[in-house]
Amino acid sequence: MFDAIDHVGIAVEEIDAALETYTGTFGMALVHRERVPAHGIELAMLAVGAEHVELVAPLASDTPVGRFLSARGPGLHHIAYRVADIDATMATLRGRSVELLDETPREGALASRIAFLHPRSADGVLTELVQR
Amino acid sequence: MFDAIDHVGIAVEEIDAALETYTGTFGMALVHRERVPAHGIELAMLAVGAEHVELVAPLASDTPVGRFLSARGPGLHHIAYRVADIDATMATLRGRSVELLDETPREGALASRIAFLHPRSADGVLTELVQR
Repeated sequence: MFDAIDHVGIAVEEIDAALETYTGTFGMALVHRERVPAHGIELAMLAVGAEHVELVAPLASDTPVGRFLSARGPGLHHIAYRVADIDATMATLRGRSVELLDETPREGALASRIAFLHPRSADGVLTELVQR
Repeated sequence: MFDAIDHVGIAVEEIDAALETYTGTFGMALVHRERVPAHGIELAMLAVGAEHVELVAPLASDTPVGRFLSARGPGLHHIAYRVADIDATMATLRGRSVELLDETPREGALASRIAFLHPRSADGVLTELVQR
């Protein structure tokens, strides 16, 4: 059902400071950076082999990622699995009583289609599906 | 420096219940299961393409993973990057002022060599190096 770990999302206070760690100290290549006001975030995608680390910073404190940081501090935020057919995967998961946060796929970074599963359905893990 | 995301660690209360989600609902294949009393954990490795999800459950409440669950509940616990030469990577990271939790590599699952970075050095993320 899941073809790969597409990326791992890390919530950070501020993208530039986190990039110093991830590009400077860890030597990852920055491949994409984008502000997504509709979701209240700025994101940076870093390459690690065929996968990515996605740094996510809030554009304001009263956003989902802003509230995550207030409650838990910076750290691992979500895991995203790559799927070939997101509509079919969502239908299969719905048939297995998985609770989806998105009724239908929405547009993600780099022309992907994405949808989130509720952490309740994945042992507390905010889980994303990505079709590229 | 990092060749791939080797696995993502998820802290769970109990392995069997979590396996129902990850093998049953998500269709991942269980490739390894092991009790590691020295670290106070039971772990299960699940294949996702070339990478793995590692479910980690505490053997007792007064263990690192037990305390993690008490403080934060189940959820994402650590990210592990695959490296070709863990000794060289540790030396490089030390030279960049990264704080390591392990002075030298220790034995990990499936005959790997592993070491952990302090979350302070990785924007709040417990980060593991794995040489296979």
